[in-house]
Amino acid sequence: MSNESIGIGVIGYGYWGPNLVRNFADSGSSHIVAVSDLDAAKLTLSKRRHPEIETTCSFRDLLQNPRIDAVAIATPVHTHFDLALAALNAGKHVFVEKPLAPTSEQVHRLIEEANRRNLTLMVDHTFLYTSAVQKIRELLLQDALGDIYYYDSTRSSLGLFQSDVNVIWDLAVHDISIIQYLLEEDPVAVSATGSCHVAGSPENMAHITLFFESKCVAHVSVNWLSPIKVRQTFVGGSKKMIVYDDLEATEKIKVYDKGIVLNGSPEDAHQFRIGYRAGDMWAPHISAREALQTEVEHFIHCMRTGAVPLSSGMSGLRVIEILEAASRSIAEHGKPVALKPPRRMPERAKVLA
Amino acid sequence: MSNESIGIGVIGYGYWGPNLVRNFADSGSSHIVAVSDLDAAKLTLSKRRHPEIETTCSFRDLLQNPRIDAVAIATPVHTHFDLALAALNAGKHVFVEKPLAPTSEQVHRLIEEANRRNLTLMVDHTFLYTSAVQKIRELLLQDALGDIYYYDSTRSSLGLFQSDVNVIWDLAVHDISIIQYLLEEDPVAVSATGSCHVAGSPENMAHITLFFESKCVAHVSVNWLSPIKVRQTFVGGSKKMIVYDDLEATEKIKVYDKGIVLNGSPEDAHQFRIGYRAGDMWAPHISAREALQTEVEHFIHCMRTGAVPLSSGMSGLRVIEILEAASRSIAEHGKPVALKPPRRMPERAKVLA
Amino acid sequence: MSNESIGIGVIGYGYWGPNLVRNFADSGSSHIVAVSDLDAAKLTLSKRRHPEIETTCSFRDLLQNPRIDAVAIATPVHTHFDLALAALNAGKHVFVEKPLAPTSEQVHRLIEEANRRNLTLMVDHTFLYTSAVQKIRELLLQDALGDIYYYDSTRSSLGLFQSDVNVIWDLAVHDISIIQYLLEEDPVAVSATGSCHVAGSPENMAHITLFFESKCVAHVSVNWLSPIKVRQTFVGGSKKMIVYDDLEATEKIKVYDKGIVLNGSPEDAHQFRIGYRAGDMWAPHISAREALQTEVEHFIHCMRTGAVPLSSGMSGLRVIEILEAASRSIAEHGKPVALKPPRRMPERAKVLA
Amino acid sequence: MSNESIGIGVIGYGYWGPNLVRNFADSGSSHIVAVSDLDAAKLTLSKRRHPEIETTCSFRDLLQNPRIDAVAIATPVHTHFDLALAALNAGKHVFVEKPLAPTSEQVHRLIEEANRRNLTLMVDHTFLYTSAVQKIRELLLQDALGDIYYYDSTRSSLGLFQSDVNVIWDLAVHDISIIQYLLEEDPVAVSATGSCHVAGSPENMAHITLFFESKCVAHVSVNWLSPIKVRQTFVGGSKKMIVYDDLEATEKIKVYDKGIVLNGSPEDAHQFRIGYRAGDMWAPHISAREALQTEVEHFIHCMRTGAVPLSSGMSGLRVIEILEAASRSIAEHGKPVALKPPRRMPERAKVLA
Repeated sequence: MSNESIGIGVIGYGYWGPNLVRNFADSGSSHIVAVSDLDAAKLTLSKRRHPEIETTCSFRDLLQNPRIDAVAIATPVHTHFDLALAALNAGKHVFVEKPLAPTSEQVHRLIEEANRRNLTLMVDHTFLYTSAVQKIRELLLQDALGDIYYYDSTRSSLGLFQSDVNVIWDLAVHDISIIQYLLEEDPVAVSATGSCHVAGSPENMAHITLFFESKCVAHVSVNWLSPIKVRQTFVGGSKKMIVYDDLEATEKIKVYDKGIVLNGSPEDAHQFRIGYRAGDMWAPHISAREALQTEVEHFIHCMRTGAVPLSSGMSGLRVIEILEAASRSIAEHGKPVALKPPRRMPERAKVLA
Repeated sequence: MSNESIGIGVIGYGYWGPNLVRNFADSGSSHIVAVSDLDAAKLTLSKRRHPEIETTCSFRDLLQNPRIDAVAIATPVHTHFDLALAALNAGKHVFVEKPLAPTSEQVHRLIEEANRRNLTLMVDHTFLYTSAVQKIRELLLQDALGDIYYYDSTRSSLGLFQSDVNVIWDLAVHDISIIQYLLEEDPVAVSATGSCHVAGSPENMAHITLFFESKCVAHVSVNWLSPIKVRQTFVGGSKKMIVYDDLEATEKIKVYDKGIVLNGSPEDAHQFRIGYRAGDMWAPHISAREALQTEVEHFIHCMRTGAVPLSSGMSGLRVIEILEAASRSIAEHGKPVALKPPRRMPERAKVLA
Repeated sequence: MSNESIGIGVIGYGYWGPNLVRNFADSGSSHIVAVSDLDAAKLTLSKRRHPEIETTCSFRDLLQNPRIDAVAIATPVHTHFDLALAALNAGKHVFVEKPLAPTSEQVHRLIEEANRRNLTLMVDHTFLYTSAVQKIRELLLQDALGDIYYYDSTRSSLGLFQSDVNVIWDLAVHDISIIQYLLEEDPVAVSATGSCHVAGSPENMAHITLFFESKCVAHVSVNWLSPIKVRQTFVGGSKKMIVYDDLEATEKIKVYDKGIVLNGSPEDAHQFRIGYRAGDMWAPHISAREALQTEVEHFIHCMRTGAVPLSSGMSGLRVIEILEAASRSIAEHGKPVALKPPRRMPERAKVLA
Repeated sequence: MSNESIGIGVIGYGYWGPNLVRNFADSGSSHIVAVSDLDAAKLTLSKRRHPEIETTCSFRDLLQNPRIDAVAIATPVHTHFDLALAALNAGKHVFVEKPLAPTSEQVHRLIEEANRRNLTLMVDHTFLYTSAVQKIRELLLQDALGDIYYYDSTRSSLGLFQSDVNVIWDLAVHDISIIQYLLEEDPVAVSATGSCHVAGSPENMAHITLFFESKCVAHVSVNWLSPIKVRQTFVGGSKKMIVYDDLEATEKIKVYDKGIVLNGSPEDAHQFRIGYRAGDMWAPHISAREALQTEVEHFIHCMRTGAVPLSSGMSGLRVIEILEAASRSIAEHGKPVALKPPRRMPERAKVLA
């Protein structure tokens, strides 16, 4: 693909679609050709803001438009598979809001189709492209934390209840993708519990524990029914520990030079003594750049070069497999569910170009 | 028992013992007769601060002292049973640091002994006596929150690793006792996961989910290896929600007039719509009184009147049963463990006299 | 003026201009006809975002355009007077970024011109239109705080140093306009100190005290050279006290039921005793509506009805008089400067329609 | 003076006296011999807590007691001079709660008396001995901040109104002593404003600006009538800036690598451009040691060695001179008052031994 500006079609102009439109437009390398939505009011809104962008109530118009090179999908989860598959079949590169699709089998099918057609398939795991997560990744690559003991995250707020997926597919999906990106190993089992407080609605509160071969453990707490918004992640290591608060305006990441010190032999449990080390805290400067801007530019780069996206279909697949296992565990009140080793077909990209 | 000042013996003058000494002394109704500790340095410290208090390295001296009416035990958990039983056998009322004993069978034995001898047995679940928990209890009794949807608590800091119990026996014990006090129903099952990051040491991080017959759920997250101290509890109800942060100097409890509003029939899942309600926040004034002062006065009141303590042996027993079930679940990576209905021999006291 | 959509011209498309364009466009009652800026790059940016809006490097094109009913000015302070006067002379209603003009004489001249031509002259004191300040005003009108003892505000951050005005004309101007809106009385004198830490630059840090006839006092602290952003205002009354933190996402206003209680006669200083009252805190729900949206609608309303704007020329004049007096006091290291009583030609509008 | 334990007498067992008793007792180098107070109830309290300490209602008993080497005075300000002078005349070393005395002439007289008798006279400027202020001093000595641009502090809470001094003598005194310790230069003038909201009571709210020869400026805001407690100090330098929040449990000091960058020549005001630099934040570990413990040990060290205390009489004198000048400025609504250069008789001690 040449360096000409890439034509983008956006399917779905609800909550997230306007952000996609704005960021693809602001990128110097792409432009929005058309927007589709089933709701005429949404199209009117788009027209008022951007008179030059075509609007249509049929996504098929976008697939047939030769000026559109890639399609960005921001619709309810249960429509992702059909829309993405149709777009790939129409020869369009595809960018899909998270989660990639409701089942791992469907994701598998999309990956195959994209590979067969040599098209870029990327899932919108936005948090991977934040300056904060990029900085944590950088610190881990430098071994600044030592052995990773745990990742413990809380993500809660009031709303937005979704009707087609429960809270883990909406919120925990962020943490699962971050865990996959940050940690060098894959989880081997999951135990999860969840609760539904509104009759007829999916679970609105859940807690997930991911087990690893090593002593590392990950825990994710999500809640759609919290009085206050919380976006807080702890990463504990043998050398240092991080508190990452995404709601902080500037000091999102705090690195604590704190930990324990072992005296005596660990074999002799009755003899060993634990000491505590309390050192400085350090908050590295974090760029204020919008993550979605970084992400759409990465998508365009991957389309042009054929590079595997950081949030590729394969990476999205593993996220879905973990969510499926967590869902099974929730149905059995926390009974652990083993995870099969990941199917790594192409290489997993780990560094943002 | 008359209104004369009650003579107290304190076994153990380590971390918590000095607080017991100070609070029993400050109460107008009791005085410290003697302190015992195996460590001579601790006794020297006590002597320097309180020349008038007797010191001894043998707890038996306290049990034989006729001027001592009650014994307060602040020693490692594995010693609680033997010390408490010996004290009851010596005819002393007993106040034991939490958790009451390492096994429910031992607790059962202590309760029987106390009942047989008509002595007060009380466990030091300090948080029940805080103005904050008392205020939450008061709000729940007024039905200010509506149906309780969840209790979700995080209790973490760096240290203090204990060698004879894991983190749930040290920290989650607080939440289990609070849950038991605040909620009208008993949990029916528990799923828990835990991790050990120091070889030869007990679990230092754990997550517990308690299931109830109703749609209520409780979750407790505890961690000895956190870079910062966290003491935060969310209580969600159908009408209002509470955030209780014990580290706040003054506004420990915030009551949010927030929630969801259901439109349409809950039977028809495809039709129902969830709306959100965002109202005011209110932080009731909380007394700054030290909880332990309230608690020792309650202990003295119960000794004198024969009243059942708020944190009676029976209430301590249920806490231990839940901790035992959680420990079994941790050993099986989250597999749920059913809880037998509580053995309620005497009535459970629910209001602080 | 009829109910037809009002045509707006925006002079200056730098930091604030794009916000004006967006908000006049989102209002259902107005539309942007043209934008002018001396910088061609700014016009290119406008064209890319809004192809339908005319652009020009000459503000005179806007004044001559019959489809433009009103002009919004968002240029450096030293240009405000000439631009606003030319616009009024061209028969346009005028909306000017704060402060209205560099001298009170110039403001006086603009008011006369607007009155003579029966045009609306409004200054963009955005904070008056925030839900937070509106809520505080509402509480004061209800006498919720009792007698007002003080207004004490801190407004600081790193940057943005301006070259044509010092920090009080940039930041304290917000507080002066808020004080004027909230308090029933006018200040009678001002003492101010200021410092310049960059050679050749205007003062970047200042502290202003406003004196009133009553026991009320106001203090404003502003700083362009602060490591962190602060936007915090305390309003103390005899019955209640408010902390207003504009950086809080949701609980911007906290009302404290705290204060002092006098026992004994105030005449007998040696006898009187002061007690303290510590009650609940309450954070009223604050609408998340953008203030500038409220403000442009108010401007349109005033244009159509001839109503006096909340932030009228007269109200802007008083702000400038106070800033001039503060500047004189700064030049004399805090020496108090008396304020003449305000020239109230038309009535001061105090409630937002 | 030998290395024998030093005998201490404490005059005044109200709010601060018990802290003095506890800290002198915990020091290995001193012991409390006797406590005096005019209020018999206070003496009863002392007796109950410390049966071994003598009590008396006459401070003269302490002055005549040969086992008392030094006297610590914790009484109302208006009594400081008479008590301290009597103690010095009785040959006792003297430790006086801040402020040292109500007038600079009285302080001068005490210094002379102490010098003549070769006794240690020390004022209890506790904040100088906090780990936080010591750390800031250390950073300044390392020139970590570059040129100091400003010190800006807020110290407010609800209460405690005092009847014999106004709020600057109670609260600003802390900042004046800290400024004197941290900054290398002395202020040359002061402008201050203050307000009284309770008839017959001294000023309960004040703002003080201290001017220096250099471009440095200091500002102190104090308030007895604030709904929340604030203890926050900003120190701005050309290289780095500090935010010191004394209410933070652990991260009391945050050092920001932020500032401005000048481009172009400062002589040519129209050409120069200011850029902004936003780097990391760093919170050095601060010891949790109680300041008063450090301070009483320093007092004992000075008594034994004859060293000049960090908070010597001379340092206390300068604080009083500044408070007197601020009081005069308050009486004239902010009119600046020049400060005479400090009378530096002995050397000013600047580093804590």
